[in-house]
Amino acid sequence: MSAQDHAAPTPAFFLAGGTGISAETLGNMILQQFPGVRFVRQKIPFITSVDSAREAVAMVDATKTDEITPLVFSTVADEEIRAELMQTKCAFIDLFGSQLDEVERVLHREAAHKGGSAHAVRNQTEYDSRMKAVEYAIEHDDGASLRAIDKAEVILLAPSRCGKTPTTMYLALQHSIFVANYPLVDEDFESARLPRPIAPYADKCFGIVSTAARLSQVRGERRPGSKYASQAQCLYELRRAESMFRTHKIPFINSSAMSIEEMAAVIMQTRKLNRVH
Amino acid sequence: MSAQDHAAPTPAFFLAGGTGISAETLGNMILQQFPGVRFVRQKIPFITSVDSAREAVAMVDATKTDEITPLVFSTVADEEIRAELMQTKCAFIDLFGSQLDEVERVLHREAAHKGGSAHAVRNQTEYDSRMKAVEYAIEHDDGASLRAIDKAEVILLAPSRCGKTPTTMYLALQHSIFVANYPLVDEDFESARLPRPIAPYADKCFGIVSTAARLSQVRGERRPGSKYASQAQCLYELRRAESMFRTHKIPFINSSAMSIEEMAAVIMQTRKLNRVH
Repeated sequence: MSAQDHAAPTPAFFLAGGTGISAETLGNMILQQFPGVRFVRQKIPFITSVDSAREAVAMVDATKTDEITPLVFSTVADEEIRAELMQTKCAFIDLFGSQLDEVERVLHREAAHKGGSAHAVRNQTEYDSRMKAVEYAIEHDDGASLRAIDKAEVILLAPSRCGKTPTTMYLALQHSIFVANYPLVDEDFESARLPRPIAPYADKCFGIVSTAARLSQVRGERRPGSKYASQAQCLYELRRAESMFRTHKIPFINSSAMSIEEMAAVIMQTRKLNRVH
Repeated sequence: MSAQDHAAPTPAFFLAGGTGISAETLGNMILQQFPGVRFVRQKIPFITSVDSAREAVAMVDATKTDEITPLVFSTVADEEIRAELMQTKCAFIDLFGSQLDEVERVLHREAAHKGGSAHAVRNQTEYDSRMKAVEYAIEHDDGASLRAIDKAEVILLAPSRCGKTPTTMYLALQHSIFVANYPLVDEDFESARLPRPIAPYADKCFGIVSTAARLSQVRGERRPGSKYASQAQCLYELRRAESMFRTHKIPFINSSAMSIEEMAAVIMQTRKLNRVH
């Protein structure tokens, strides 16, 4: 039996000079590779001085015991601060330094080794375009408005509660894409025609479906015991939606087994919206 | 003069078994350390088979020239697929494998080496809570509704166009936090009192300000030449807002030099919303 098999969970820290988003994401990907081990996670963002590095080290070292060595994932780029962090008695997993050396060799250049964040404001234009995309998404959510529907880069179509709204917000917020979304309702299912306001924009449409079981469960939370939430109604709507998508050659995905990030990535790939930035 | 100093930009690829979000984020953090080098970036997500790995290798290798070695950042975890990717003639920067070995040593465990994504659905509960938070945010955006204002975990307060809405959506979407936001308008500035509907929830409030120059510019895009967009009006509102925040001990940030991610990270840290997950 190894030391780390003990009942107590292993502390895992995510240290960063910025928001800690990258440290947490990549650290968690690594932790996922150890499904048998329990972890308690904590993020320590904005480590921008040697002093705050010293504080962070004191904090993580306080969790070390004879049995358990905590894991410290770091994306800190500043060399002086990194050197301070490496004083930790825990296991220091540098998500940045080792790769940086490799890239230096390939590029025949020295890295700046400056602190920084993947999530700092890079330029005002980028910020403005995110803001505009989010505002567009809110205005054009759930068919609430068609004012600037012609400006949409993607129009998400789906029966109620299949995940249109979060996917829309994600594409707007993370990728500054102008996304409208439009609900498919009973009257749309009477024919295989696209809803009239959307019909001119079939080439921008993207469908979302789900499974009847899942959709019925989600709808049931909102209106328990209703026809709207019944498996039969959900199955009917999903079949009609799918047939509409096929008729009009509208690509579609099933949201029941995908995360919002995955749906967004598929939509962008399919609609060729992977912008260079 | 080194090979990579040539005029043509260096191709940088982000390869992943999932969405490619982590590969792109961390890869870009590394590229940021080389401000003098021009890059063209491309993401290749969803590499989930040896065949798709082979295709990816063909694609990246096609961009290699005698002068320029492209950079290939990868977060692919599956060993067989990784082995295939390593056949590339480009520089392969493994954002996963080397750190995994280190963690294996610390934990005295073997990693599962299974493909996976930081952004796949982990459980339905997490997905549902994101959906609910996004719906809450849309309903309570810009003071549009006060229906469930008592359920808010954070209430963002700011003069118009300081960045309340995107920050709200980010907190909801990425962290499943119930966030309402409320605009401060002229009548709120007549006294230092909090707006009446918000007053009972001062301990949940968080303020956003900006600089007069920046705010005037943003407002000018919407209503050019208006009093609303004038520097004088912006300055007045920002000063009054700041004084209101100070009076009620409401923490606040200046959005003009921060990204949405940074604002979200500060708000969560200040309001102690860094949940364990």
